[in-house]
This record gives sequence, C-alpha cells and structure tokens, in this order.
Amino acid sequence: MPSPPDLTALVLVGTLNKSPAESSSELIGRHVLDALEKQGVSGEIVRVVDHDVRFGVSTDEGDGDEWPQIRDQLLAADILVVATPIWLGQPSSVTKMVLERLDAELSETDDEGRLLTYGKVAIVAVVGNEDGAHHVVAECLQALNDTGFSVAPNAGAYWVGEAMQSVDYKDHDSPPEATASAVTSAAANAVHLARLLQADAYPPS
Amino acid sequence: MPSPPDLTALVLVGTLNKSPAESSSELIGRHVLDALEKQGVSGEIVRVVDHDVRFGVSTDEGDGDEWPQIRDQLLAADILVVATPIWLGQPSSVTKMVLERLDAELSETDDEGRLLTYGKVAIVAVVGNEDGAHHVVAECLQALNDTGFSVAPNAGAYWVGEAMQSVDYKDHDSPPEATASAVTSAAANAVHLARLLQADAYPPS
Amino acid sequence: MPSPPDLTALVLVGTLNKSPAESSSELIGRHVLDALEKQGVSGEIVRVVDHDVRFGVSTDEGDGDEWPQIRDQLLAADILVVATPIWLGQPSSVTKMVLERLDAELSETDDEGRLLTYGKVAIVAVVGNEDGAHHVVAECLQALNDTGFSVAPNAGAYWVGEAMQSVDYKDHDSPPEATASAVTSAAANAVHLARLLQADAYPPS
Amino acid sequence: MPSPPDLTALVLVGTLNKSPAESSSELIGRHVLDALEKQGVSGEIVRVVDHDVRFGVSTDEGDGDEWPQIRDQLLAADILVVATPIWLGQPSSVTKMVLERLDAELSETDDEGRLLTYGKVAIVAVVGNEDGAHHVVAECLQALNDTGFSVAPNAGAYWVGEAMQSVDYKDHDSPPEATASAVTSAAANAVHLARLLQADAYPPS
Repeated sequence: MPSPPDLTALVLVGTLNKSPAESSSELIGRHVLDALEKQGVSGEIVRVVDHDVRFGVSTDEGDGDEWPQIRDQLLAADILVVATPIWLGQPSSVTKMVLERLDAELSETDDEGRLLTYGKVAIVAVVGNEDGAHHVVAECLQALNDTGFSVAPNAGAYWVGEAMQSVDYKDHDSPPEATASAVTSAAANAVHLARLLQADAYPPS
Repeated sequence: MPSPPDLTALVLVGTLNKSPAESSSELIGRHVLDALEKQGVSGEIVRVVDHDVRFGVSTDEGDGDEWPQIRDQLLAADILVVATPIWLGQPSSVTKMVLERLDAELSETDDEGRLLTYGKVAIVAVVGNEDGAHHVVAECLQALNDTGFSVAPNAGAYWVGEAMQSVDYKDHDSPPEATASAVTSAAANAVHLARLLQADAYPPS
Repeated sequence: MPSPPDLTALVLVGTLNKSPAESSSELIGRHVLDALEKQGVSGEIVRVVDHDVRFGVSTDEGDGDEWPQIRDQLLAADILVVATPIWLGQPSSVTKMVLERLDAELSETDDEGRLLTYGKVAIVAVVGNEDGAHHVVAECLQALNDTGFSVAPNAGAYWVGEAMQSVDYKDHDSPPEATASAVTSAAANAVHLARLLQADAYPPS
Repeated sequence: MPSPPDLTALVLVGTLNKSPAESSSELIGRHVLDALEKQGVSGEIVRVVDHDVRFGVSTDEGDGDEWPQIRDQLLAADILVVATPIWLGQPSSVTKMVLERLDAELSETDDEGRLLTYGKVAIVAVVGNEDGAHHVVAECLQALNDTGFSVAPNAGAYWVGEAMQSVDYKDHDSPPEATASAVTSAAANAVHLARLLQADAYPPS
C-alpha cells in the first residue's frame, strides 16, 4: 500500500463520571487512541457525560442537545472507539445513550442509498473491576454493526479483574500485558480495514 | 390465606421521552399495575425521564439529584415493575440508568445484614415494535436479582411485533391477547411471592 | 418455621467433558450442593454429557434419549442448580441443550393449569478462567424463569479470574472467599424460598 | 474492481433437527447462499446435527469426531454464514457447539502469527417464531469476532414473528420483504469485504 490515507478516529467514553474525575474507561480509550496514532491515525477523545447529550433516537433532540456536535465528529471519523465501563455485567447507561443516538443513522443515507456509517470501523474497549467484558463487547458490536459499522478481527479489547474484586484498570501503573496486546491488535486490524474501505467503498444499496 | 397483607408496587418506566409524549412502555407498565391492583395491590407509576435522575452508582448523587425520592418510593414498595422500551434489541439507556442506581443497594443492609431489597419482588415489562424482549428481560432480571430482588415464575411480560415492522404497543386498541395473559400471570405470581416474603423474610446474612 | 420440610436439589452440570475428566463446573456445583446440604437439603449431581441427552425441545426425543430420566429427577427436586462453564463469554452448549429441553415444560401443566416447574427454585453457578459470569447468569435465569422457576436473591454464584488468564476454579485449593460467600448466600436464600413455595403454592393459572 | 476473485462460502445450520426434517434456519441459510451466489460466490450448506460433531474446544476431539471435515470446509471458505434458530430468545445449543469448536482457532496461526480465520467474513442469519434475533446476532458476532472473523455492515439478517405467535419462517411462501432485503444487503456487503481482504490481508501479528 502506498503512502497511507489520512485516517481519523473518535473515542466516545461512556463513563458515568464527569471530568475531572479519573476514569478507567477514558484511560483504556486513551490507550486505544495511542495505538491508533502509532498506525498514523489522528483522533480525539470525548467524554460523553461532559456534554449535554439527550436521551433519544434522533440525530438532534433540539433545545441545546449537544449530540449534533459529537455526531459531526463521528461522521468525520473513519474509526469509532466505544470505550465503556461495565456496571452489573453490562455496558453503561451513557454508552447505551450513545448507541441509541446512533439508531438515528438507520434513516440517514448518502446519494447511493448507503448509511453514512458505512465505511467506518468500530472498536470496543471495556474495563471493569470484574466480569462482563465479553457481553459488553457483544452488545456494542451488535448495535454498531446494526447501525452500519464494519468490524475487524478481535475488535474488543478489555480488562477486568478477578471475580468480585475491586482493583480498577486505572490502578495499574501500566496496562496489564494481555490487555496491552489486545489493544495493539484491535488497533492494527481496524486501521487496515478502515484503509481498505476508504479506498474501496461498499456497493450502493 | 386470610385477609391479605397490604402490598404496594412501584412501576419505573424507562421510556426516552418526557411527558406528555405517549409511551408504549408506560402503557404496558400501566397494564401491569392494573393487573396488580386486581390482586389488591396499590401502586404508582414514575416516568423516570420526567425527573432529574443523575448517572451514577450511589444512592444520592447530590446537587439536585432526584433519584433519592424515587428510591424512597422503591424502598416502600413490595413489588418493583421495570417497564422498558427496546432499542437496538436492548433495554433503554434510561432503564440502564435505573439499574445502575440500584447497584448502590449492594452496600445498603438492614440490622440483619440483608440488602434492603431482600423481600421485594421484580417484574419486567417490555415493549418494542420488533424483537428484543427476551434479552431485555434477561438483562433486567439479572441486574435486579444481583441487587437483591426475588423473581416469581414468568416475570417477564412483553409485546413485540414482527421483524422490522413499525407498529407500537400503544397502537393497539387493547393489549394483544398473549401479552394480556402474560401480564396477568406475572402479576398474580409476583403478588403471591411478595405476600410469602412479607410474612416470612429471608434469613439474616 | 417448625420442623423443616424435606427438600431435594438437582445439580445439572454443563461441562463439555465426560467423566472422569476433572471439571470446574462440577466442582462449583458440588460446592453449591454442600451448602444446600448444610441447610437440610439432600441432592444429586448429574454431569449431563455423561448421558445420551439429545438435542430437542420435547420432554422425550425417543430412541434412547436419556433426558427423560434426568427430567424425572428434576420433577422430583425442589431446587435446580445449573452449573456451567463459560466459553467465549457465554453458557456452554451443553447447558443450552438442557435449557432447550426445559422449553418443553411450557406445555406441561398440572390440574390447576400451572407449569410443573412452578414451585421450584433455580440457582445458577458459573465458572470460567476469565470473564462472562454475569451474562451467563442472565441467560440462564431468563430461560429458567421463562420455563417456570422462581429465583431467590443473589441466585448467581460464580468465579472467574482476571482478563485473559488461565487459572481454573479447580486449580484453587479451596474456593476463593468471595465465591464461597456467594455460594452460601445463594443456597440459604433458595432454601428459604423453596420452603415457602412448598408450603404455599402459586395460584392456579 | 476487475474480474472478481473466486470466493466460497460455507453455511453452518444450527437447527436441532436432523434431515430430512424441514428447517427454517436451513431455509434462511439457503436464502443467504442464494444471495451470495448472485454475487459470484459458490458455497455449501452443512446441517451440523446431521454429522457426529462432538462437544469440545479443540480442532479435533478424536474418536470419530466429524468436526475436522467441517473445519476443512470452513478453512477453505471466505465467508462463513451461521444460520441458527432461536430457542428461549437465544442461539441454539448446536450453534453454541459450533462456536465452541471455533474457540480452538485461537491457538491456530499462520506463519505471520495471524489466526487462520483472519480474512474470513461472517454473516449471521436467524429465524424464530418470535423474538430473540438481535441477541442471537450479538452473541454470534461477538464469538465470531473473538475468533478472528471480520464483519461487514448489517451482517445480521433475520425473521421473527409477533410476540408469542407460532408461525415459522418456513411457513411463508416467500421470505417476508424486509428479511429478503436484509439478506441481500448482508450478502452484498460481506462479498465486498471478503474481496478486499482476499486482495489485501491483515498485517502480521
């Protein structure tokens, strides 16, 4: 492949806590973005709960809804990273709010009848003090694929501790090795796929 | 059983839309409450999104958080009905926000070391224009059971339409027969179980 | 409560491996049965894959199907423990085969129109070397509740290790403390509920 | 794109019933294969339960295990279609058995350290008489992505009927329109992605 196309990524962090609270899910989102940047991708991180995003399933709920700005960043990005904490073994409500907003994309198509998300690649990054990552990846990948995203192999990167323990991802001095390796793979695969799709789009619907 | 104990129910509706918008999930919640009332239970319906409930996993997020009032109603109730719409095959973000607030109950115990939710019975009522009810029931029952609720047989009552269709529960003049029957059973079983638990509490932890 | 009724339990183990292979899921099933026995319950453990159980959704698939004998044990028991390993973050196929066979119970009722499973209480015990327990509990509880089982608080007891590690439950000299405590609670609550339901059955349907 | 590469597909059908019983999941698998063939792909359908596939998580459980032959077909294919019925809102046990066998692929790599499944694209086709498709897609996509498959947009194609009804997919004279359209899209997108990956493989791990 010649000189790489210019790819961008958006990391949407689904922590329940506003800045400046520390956030393990923001941290793994940062680690994914670092890995993407090593592949030549530039990107941004948005902690969703710092913005006035409204519950809903439209592209703009009006009246000060701040989803439209985030949506603009999303539409400009080639890779979407959903970084989420686990609560009760499930994705956070904030992440679910984001996925619901993406539901609106099912009605948004280009001149060829394709969803505007076609051509974008999704990564899911998950952290919790214990248990739940596979299911969170499952729910997020299904919702993201339903709304038009493509998925490269091993797109879920996660860390969780032993059952019913309380260490957080952010309590580690550096990412546990297996997670660091999963983050690197997820990023490399997503970048490869995003470049292919940027060069050669899905057929008209 | 002699003269029935006095039971109360709280219906928490997870629609994304504030009042006075019509809501299918509120409607099935109403139908469940009607069925409970026929069994001698009194109750209330709260559309969560009408209140300023905050994201979080504590009993009180402070600064105007309106969860504490809803929590008071919950702690006073014997039966909790979670009534939720389906989005992307999953429970709504508002319902997830409620479940996360219930996570706080894992730290709240009575003098005997039991969670304050022990003795309470959960029902899950789900509507969508298509597909997703079983999974929504699964996620809600697991989260509610994790946080101390008991579950009577057939505690999930739902309606969904055929794949990829757009009729809503509220578009029916009366509840489809299979759903009406499921609502009646869920209510009768929950009331029976709540009365047993009211008379004879779980052992100290 | 006066002299306790005589309760029995059946533990169905969903390991993929036939005896005499060691099995972590059988071991946690044994631990749950031990805890039940301390509450005065007698019980049996069945490793499903040691029997010629057929795929299907009937009570008897015929032609040597060995589910009917297991079903007889199930119908005689007051408490059902589903003990399952996690594979890919999900319940094992053997466990799923068992749940599918329980689907047949939706057509089996007593003289009062109640499912034969009404009055029985379910516990779900889950082990894996990493991640997946909450979701496995969710799927099992939903399927068991759909098919008529009641659920006492904290009915899911599990152990999993840190993300992407390879220690098994059976590698521990004794159960990790948090899991041991969860097993004890799940058993005590289930026994309490089963006794209540034995004394006072759900109303006719 | 110049003259198309030669792509092949394998459809694995997870029905619980052996041939010659009619199968709705085989039928939707056939419909997906028809759509793939219109895109120039050749393929085969395997009803898994017609073969002596063993429970396990290795590539070959020995002693007459027939997974190795199916695995050979899988390794030769560019597109894997998992076609499954829904039971209790979840994927069938037979489908779960297949996913568990794919777990073995996590230990199988090429000279570049890539899983042998890298480069293969997955489609999930789901049918039931009611409810469960999104969750089945979620579980299958997560397991398939965990084991190395890529996913093109809208990779889940399904049909289910209204809540608690009993019409089957195979009872229709022709596929319901929305499902037919979803099948066509899933096939077109998967073929596009498989061709890109055939021409330009993921980077070494």
